[in-house]
Amino acid sequence: MNAPNKIAHIGIAVKSLEQALPFYTNHLGLSLIGTEEVESEQVKVAFLEIGESRIELLEPLSDQSPIAKFIEKRGEGIHHIALDVNDVKERLIHLKEQGVPLIHEVPKKGAHNAQIGFLHPKAAGGVLYELCQYPEEDS
Amino acid sequence: MNAPNKIAHIGIAVKSLEQALPFYTNHLGLSLIGTEEVESEQVKVAFLEIGESRIELLEPLSDQSPIAKFIEKRGEGIHHIALDVNDVKERLIHLKEQGVPLIHEVPKKGAHNAQIGFLHPKAAGGVLYELCQYPEEDS
Repeated sequence: MNAPNKIAHIGIAVKSLEQALPFYTNHLGLSLIGTEEVESEQVKVAFLEIGESRIELLEPLSDQSPIAKFIEKRGEGIHHIALDVNDVKERLIHLKEQGVPLIHEVPKKGAHNAQIGFLHPKAAGGVLYELCQYPEEDS
Repeated sequence: MNAPNKIAHIGIAVKSLEQALPFYTNHLGLSLIGTEEVESEQVKVAFLEIGESRIELLEPLSDQSPIAKFIEKRGEGIHHIALDVNDVKERLIHLKEQGVPLIHEVPKKGAHNAQIGFLHPKAAGGVLYELCQYPEEDS
C-alpha cells in the first residue's frame, strides 16, 4: 500500500466547545472553519484549520454519544487521528486480509460526505485511527 | 497571533519501536524517515512521514524517561501534538501574557536543532501542545 496523503484531522474530545474554543482561536491563532452536528454520533464538531490538516473538537450532545463515554472513562483529550486516503474500501479489505483488527470492515458515510472506516485501537497500541476518503470534487 | 504553519508532528508513546513500527510501515504504508536517540529525554524516536507532517513514535530508554512515566500512568497512546511556528520565543511570551499556563516560558533546544516550548496540558483540556521552530535552512 502507498502512504496515506496526509493527516486529515485530529479529533479531540471536549466537554464544551464554548469553553474549549478560545484556546484554539485566541491563544493559538487558528481559524474556526465551522461547526456541524453529527446526529448519528451525537456530537457537535468544531473544525479548525491548520496547514493541510484540521483539528476537530468533539462535544457530546448526549450521554449516549461515544464521545461522552470516552470523556467519562479517560477525561477530555485526543480521541482519534484521521488519515486522508484515496482508497478507503480497498485499504479496509487489505488490512483485514493482513489480520489488522478493524471497527469497520466496509466504509460508512461520515461528515462532509466522506467515506470513513475506523481501525480498532488494539491495532495500533491504543491509538484510534480513522481512514477518510473525501469525494473527488471536494479534495 | 497568526496561525501556526502546520502540524509538525504527533508524538505517540510506545513501549517498543520494534513492536510498534510494523503497523505504521507495513499496514498503513508510511515511510520511516529515521530514528534518533534524545538523551536528555531518555527516548528513542522513530520518524514517519505523512503529508507535510510526521508521526513520531517515542520509546522510553529508561524508567526515568517522561515517556516511561506517561505509559505507566496512561498506557501507550498519543502523548503530544507539535505545531510548526516561525516565532516560538515571541509566542511563549505572548501566551504567558495572556495567562496561558506553560511548561517552558523560554524556548529550549529539541531534536533536529529546533527551538521548542511545551504548553501546560491544563491550557488545552488535557492535550499537551508543543510549539516548534525549525532553523530556516531546514524548513
